[in-house]
Amino acid sequence: MLDINVSKIKASRLKHISLEDIPFGKHFTDHMLEANFEDGEWKNVEIKPYQPLTLDPSTSALHYGQSIFEGIKAFRSHDGEAYIFRPYENFKRFNLSAQRMCMPEVTEELFIEGMRQLIEIDKDWIPAKREHSLYIRPLMFATDNAIGVKPSENYKFLIMLSPAGPYHATPMKIAVEERYTRAAPGGVGFSKNAGNYGASMLPATKAKLQGYDQVLWTDALEHRWLQEVGMMNIGFVINDVFITPMLEETILKGVTRDSVLTILKDMGIKTEERRISIDEVVEEYKKGGVTEVFGMGTAAVISLVKELKYKDVVMKFDTAAFTVADKVKHALHNIRSGKAEDIHGWMFKV
Amino acid sequence: MLDINVSKIKASRLKHISLEDIPFGKHFTDHMLEANFEDGEWKNVEIKPYQPLTLDPSTSALHYGQSIFEGIKAFRSHDGEAYIFRPYENFKRFNLSAQRMCMPEVTEELFIEGMRQLIEIDKDWIPAKREHSLYIRPLMFATDNAIGVKPSENYKFLIMLSPAGPYHATPMKIAVEERYTRAAPGGVGFSKNAGNYGASMLPATKAKLQGYDQVLWTDALEHRWLQEVGMMNIGFVINDVFITPMLEETILKGVTRDSVLTILKDMGIKTEERRISIDEVVEEYKKGGVTEVFGMGTAAVISLVKELKYKDVVMKFDTAAFTVADKVKHALHNIRSGKAEDIHGWMFKV
Repeated sequence: MLDINVSKIKASRLKHISLEDIPFGKHFTDHMLEANFEDGEWKNVEIKPYQPLTLDPSTSALHYGQSIFEGIKAFRSHDGEAYIFRPYENFKRFNLSAQRMCMPEVTEELFIEGMRQLIEIDKDWIPAKREHSLYIRPLMFATDNAIGVKPSENYKFLIMLSPAGPYHATPMKIAVEERYTRAAPGGVGFSKNAGNYGASMLPATKAKLQGYDQVLWTDALEHRWLQEVGMMNIGFVINDVFITPMLEETILKGVTRDSVLTILKDMGIKTEERRISIDEVVEEYKKGGVTEVFGMGTAAVISLVKELKYKDVVMKFDTAAFTVADKVKHALHNIRSGKAEDIHGWMFKV
Repeated sequence: MLDINVSKIKASRLKHISLEDIPFGKHFTDHMLEANFEDGEWKNVEIKPYQPLTLDPSTSALHYGQSIFEGIKAFRSHDGEAYIFRPYENFKRFNLSAQRMCMPEVTEELFIEGMRQLIEIDKDWIPAKREHSLYIRPLMFATDNAIGVKPSENYKFLIMLSPAGPYHATPMKIAVEERYTRAAPGGVGFSKNAGNYGASMLPATKAKLQGYDQVLWTDALEHRWLQEVGMMNIGFVINDVFITPMLEETILKGVTRDSVLTILKDMGIKTEERRISIDEVVEEYKKGGVTEVFGMGTAAVISLVKELKYKDVVMKFDTAAFTVADKVKHALHNIRSGKAEDIHGWMFKV
């Protein structure tokens, strides 16, 4: 049994914060979980008031990027109970990320039971409003105090909680990336490590200057095969078939992506996980076959795409007519709010 | 003129540390430089006692990897004066790294003059022994306290100093990487950001388990074109010509690499910067044409390679007979210790 040392805050900060339409990732709940990896094992698991860390300037993660994270959501069900959405999937991915970054794995008990206890303590912070949720951020980073390049011997594992409104409320304009690369075969694209995100900011910023919300990444070799969008996997409805790029080591194994595929199969909609090129999308668009494009991710859930630009081709989509995206969004919402039966066992009760 | 607020330590820790054969990167001098980027400019430049940082768990760099660094060395000349080796080259590279990671640039004054003043204060920490030096570590990382993925608005710039003995004293065994990838075109390989190093640790660890000190990275497309080794650029002497991979965006623009090329040209040795494949190296090795292989980097300076493995081909080199590496190493040493004239203006007096 996981031995967690709990020290609670004297007075909750919740009364000073409105949980209505709260911006994403700017407010944190009263408590956080912290554990330290030392001498080959996780030690000193604590739930304590959310507070700053004291880190040496030589802290390895700041220099050499051994740092991984996850994004998970908890919801308040219509009966008032708190549920976490598919935390075991994120637990498994967290340890896959750890392996690739030469970091220790965390135990299921530390990740799942630690998260459960933390949320139980801060459960009043879960917003009740539709599309609002409690965003859960597990983070692990290297804490050796030395600047030789080698895997750290010490790590810190944290879980922090942030109440959040919808991430992207409006349909997006996306530019297909032709110059920059997010991930190559043999690289770390499938691993949710900090460096992948920092590396993506210049291309994303350049796209924003051109009026686009995000970039759709393509392969490093030909800039032709579609990978993913910023914080999301991408999916297309083409000739009534839902197509999403197959999982390769350049692509993050999205939990929402998997949920969408499962729900669509339940609905009898044909799905394909395969390589898909921008040329195919353009060709089908010109023939009128591409009826929906949307992103899938924990933060944004389902993000409709109203425009996709590739070279001089601007593809526009009528997001108001996206029936597949709409159905899947409602199905997900109904499972998470407890209105629909949780036939796949996705909701983990706190 | 840069306004630095200086607060000095009461009693130096130097008397508790021996500067003889001190391990790399484990000890830091009495003081550090710190500055904060806020509201679009660098503020509050301080030199103060080396001390821990207080960082929120949501500190952006820990989650999204906007973190870059440099490695520079200061030496004690034979006349007792302190010199920094080519700091302007590292300053330029630091800002190139910053651009790619969507981070603000630092001013020349903050980087160079800040470093100079810091070293002046801690100059007694520069080891006098041959091949020992004061390693200088500038670091910049994102400090926004929010977990939405976007370029941070706030950053911290630090300079820390670490007295160091030789980094790799013995000749190395290197495995040519056939499976993993460090950098792809359109990526961040040329940028000295934290994530590049964390991503390299699993391949390096796997190579160590096979008895190799480092991997020699190859291109992401064919795993054939040579890039660089862990913390160093790579060079070959083949048929009396020094060959090093040309600078592409997958390769770090090494300052030591540039110094070696310059010294070799001064000596009348023919140099080539071009694409070089492992097939060419193997073919020339079999004909007896490959006489030297060595790495070039700030930490290790010149690292001789005694063995290079590619698939089932094990190439062995008699490092005792490496005349080019030996000449260049001595020439570099003589410039840095003040025994040879500094004809290129590489030594920056503190």
